[in-house]
Amino acid sequence: MLTLYHSPGACSGAVHLALEETGLPYEIARVNLPEGQQRSESYLKLNPKGRVPVLVDGDFAITEVSAILRYVSRLAPQAKLWPEDAREDGRCAEWLAWIGSGLHIAYAHVRRPERYADDETSKAAIVEKGKATTRATWQQVEDKLVAQNLPWAAGNSFSMADLYLFIFWTWGKGQLLSYDMEKDFPRWTEHARKVAARAAVQRVQAKDGFPMPA
Amino acid sequence: MLTLYHSPGACSGAVHLALEETGLPYEIARVNLPEGQQRSESYLKLNPKGRVPVLVDGDFAITEVSAILRYVSRLAPQAKLWPEDAREDGRCAEWLAWIGSGLHIAYAHVRRPERYADDETSKAAIVEKGKATTRATWQQVEDKLVAQNLPWAAGNSFSMADLYLFIFWTWGKGQLLSYDMEKDFPRWTEHARKVAARAAVQRVQAKDGFPMPA
Repeated sequence: MLTLYHSPGACSGAVHLALEETGLPYEIARVNLPEGQQRSESYLKLNPKGRVPVLVDGDFAITEVSAILRYVSRLAPQAKLWPEDAREDGRCAEWLAWIGSGLHIAYAHVRRPERYADDETSKAAIVEKGKATTRATWQQVEDKLVAQNLPWAAGNSFSMADLYLFIFWTWGKGQLLSYDMEKDFPRWTEHARKVAARAAVQRVQAKDGFPMPA
Repeated sequence: MLTLYHSPGACSGAVHLALEETGLPYEIARVNLPEGQQRSESYLKLNPKGRVPVLVDGDFAITEVSAILRYVSRLAPQAKLWPEDAREDGRCAEWLAWIGSGLHIAYAHVRRPERYADDETSKAAIVEKGKATTRATWQQVEDKLVAQNLPWAAGNSFSMADLYLFIFWTWGKGQLLSYDMEKDFPRWTEHARKVAARAAVQRVQAKDGFPMPA
C-alpha cells in the first residue's frame, strides 16, 4: 500500500492526481500545515525538510514532487504518465524542474516571506517583489505553452508535467494570487480545461476542492 | 553536435561534468554572466528565463539542470548515469529536485538577494537569513548522506545525482560560503573525493577551475 502525506491545496496535490490516474491502491495521510504538523518530531523523522509531500512505499520513503511523480510513473508503467521518447522525456523533466524551482519558489515569496527574512519591513518588501516575480513567471508559462504549440506540456502525450502544471493553474486562480486565469492566461486555461476534464482529476477535486477552470 | 551554454562556476557545471562523463562530442558556448549576456536579446530567444544552462541538440533546446541531466542520460545509455532500479531512479530524481529547489535557492538568497527585494535594508536582511538557511541546508545534505549510508547518492551506482551534488560541494568550499567542508561536512567530503577522483571530473576541472576536496 502506498501512503501519500498530503495537504489539500498544497503542491502534494500533483501526486494525489497522479496516484488517482494510475489506479494503484493508495491512502492519504493528511498533514495539517496550518497547525505545523509538518514540523512535528514524528514527521521530521519521515522528512527532515519538514515539507509535504512524502510518499511511503513499504520501507521506502521519497520526497520532492517531481521525484515522486517519476517514481509513481515507474510503479505504474501501464498508465503511461512519463514519455518514452527521449526529447519528450527531457521536456517532461524540464517542466517538473521549472515548476518546482521557479513557479513554486516565486509563489513562496508571496506566501511565505518568513523563509527569506525575519523583520516585518523586509517581509513586506519580499511579498511586494514576489507579486511581480510570480506574475512574470505565470506569463512565461503562458508564453512557453504558446511557443511549444503542442497538445500537452511535454509533447503529444499526456504526462506528469500536465498534472503538476495544473496545480499551479489552480494556485493562480486561488485566493492569494487571484489572477483572472481565463482572461489573462488563455492558453494555459485551455490546457487546464483538458486536465480538468479527466475523470481522475474530477474524483480528486471532489475530495480536495481546488478551483476548476470555467 | 551538442552545445552547452555554460559559465564556469555556475550550476551548468553539473552538465559539463555529465557530458564529459558520457564521451559524447559537445562544445561549450561560454555565457558571460557578470556582463549580463544571459539577458541579451539573442540569449533570451534561446531561454526566456535568462539563465544557464541550455543544451542545444540540433533543433531541440532544453533548460533546467536536472532535466538536461536526464536528457543526457537518455542520449548516452551506455554511460549508465541514470539508475535502472525504480527506487534508485526515484532517489536520483529526489536529489536532483532538492538540489535545484533547495540547495540552489538557499544559495541564491546569499548570492542574489536582488531577486527577492529591491531596497538595500531588505537585501541585507535576506542575505543574513540566507546564510543561516544555507548552512542548515548543507547540514541536511550531510545528515541525509549519513542516514542513507550508501556508496553513492542514489544508491549502489554512480549517477547524475553525484555530479550535481559535487557542484554544490564546490559552492560550499567557494568564496561566498567559505565553509570548512572537510571538517564540518566529512561525509559529503568523502563523497566529493570519490567524484573528484574520476578522470572526467579532473579533465573538466582543468578547464573550469573549481575547488577540489583536500
